[in-house]
Amino acid sequence: MQTSPLLEALIESLRCLPGVGPKSAQRMAYHLLQRNRNGGMDLARALTAAMSQIGHCEHCRTFTEEDVCSICNNPRRQNSGLLCIVEQPADIQAIEQTGQFSGRYFVLMGHLSPIDGIGPREIGLDKLQKRLQTEKFVEVILATNPTIEGDVTANYIAELCMQAGIKVSRIAHGIPVGGELEMVDGTTLSHSFLGRREINN
Amino acid sequence: MQTSPLLEALIESLRCLPGVGPKSAQRMAYHLLQRNRNGGMDLARALTAAMSQIGHCEHCRTFTEEDVCSICNNPRRQNSGLLCIVEQPADIQAIEQTGQFSGRYFVLMGHLSPIDGIGPREIGLDKLQKRLQTEKFVEVILATNPTIEGDVTANYIAELCMQAGIKVSRIAHGIPVGGELEMVDGTTLSHSFLGRREINN
Repeated sequence: MQTSPLLEALIESLRCLPGVGPKSAQRMAYHLLQRNRNGGMDLARALTAAMSQIGHCEHCRTFTEEDVCSICNNPRRQNSGLLCIVEQPADIQAIEQTGQFSGRYFVLMGHLSPIDGIGPREIGLDKLQKRLQTEKFVEVILATNPTIEGDVTANYIAELCMQAGIKVSRIAHGIPVGGELEMVDGTTLSHSFLGRREINN
Repeated sequence: MQTSPLLEALIESLRCLPGVGPKSAQRMAYHLLQRNRNGGMDLARALTAAMSQIGHCEHCRTFTEEDVCSICNNPRRQNSGLLCIVEQPADIQAIEQTGQFSGRYFVLMGHLSPIDGIGPREIGLDKLQKRLQTEKFVEVILATNPTIEGDVTANYIAELCMQAGIKVSRIAHGIPVGGELEMVDGTTLSHSFLGRREINN
């Protein structure tokens, strides 16, 4: 029995966060009330602003509150002629942190999954196809997840690119750097053999 | 580089929650944006209401949006003559779940800690002393944490109760039920010996 309905409501609401169960939610609520009410109010404002104002970029479909995101608007990236296809906006963040890629992105917001009613239209492939035809891309890099659905999606998009006469590639799958061979699963290991590269002097 | 300042602000704000680091905050933000915007808005409303409206009960100092909390207002609990002293509002919740106690509470919102400038006034002992004099308590049960500060605080309050001529007790410390003797630390084990009870037929 809680002594406060508002506190009970807060604990219940905190459970919408992933990985937060009843105990963590209670701990969070008490922590904010006892030690950081300003932080709680800031969080409420940030949540309201983000949930109501963040939409999708017209070009790449990632999260942004503008019509076109800062990456798509960047002229240097427009000139690179590279397009990287990812499943989620979080994947962009991960790729940007490597500093290896300076082209543009296209976010599918999912992957093909006919059983769940997710076809090419639902992951924005009509929009992608239009971009492939109207913009000049030198290469499309497929960075969907190495899962069955991700691979199927990559194959489907590869077809579209080849029809449009654009070079298409898939990011490499193999042993993670720093990993140990004996710890890696068989599928990854066979991928790393299939994807071996000749060493040239 | 995030494509959205609002998203960045949300990730930063989520870190005010205890146990939430940069990676979890990012996961939470993307989860809400992609799958549960309504949940995010509900959470914002619950946070605003709780942070701005929840205060402390006039009698027991626990969290409540009323002047007096539902436990202090309950006539059955007023008649029991029992008062349990705890450090945090969360402790009330834990004790209520046992169903063992049907008296009233007093929440210190901390413990005595002279180094941090927390003296008797800061943990509301002036208020407690007034209650001990004006209300008729049969017994005061000290349920502060079994830490050095909790013990010191308990001893201090025990003095106050004895001065007021009220029976005072400390909750038992010993082996947790379901625990194993060999796994328990020495201090707990010696507490359980000191606190042994005679078995009567």
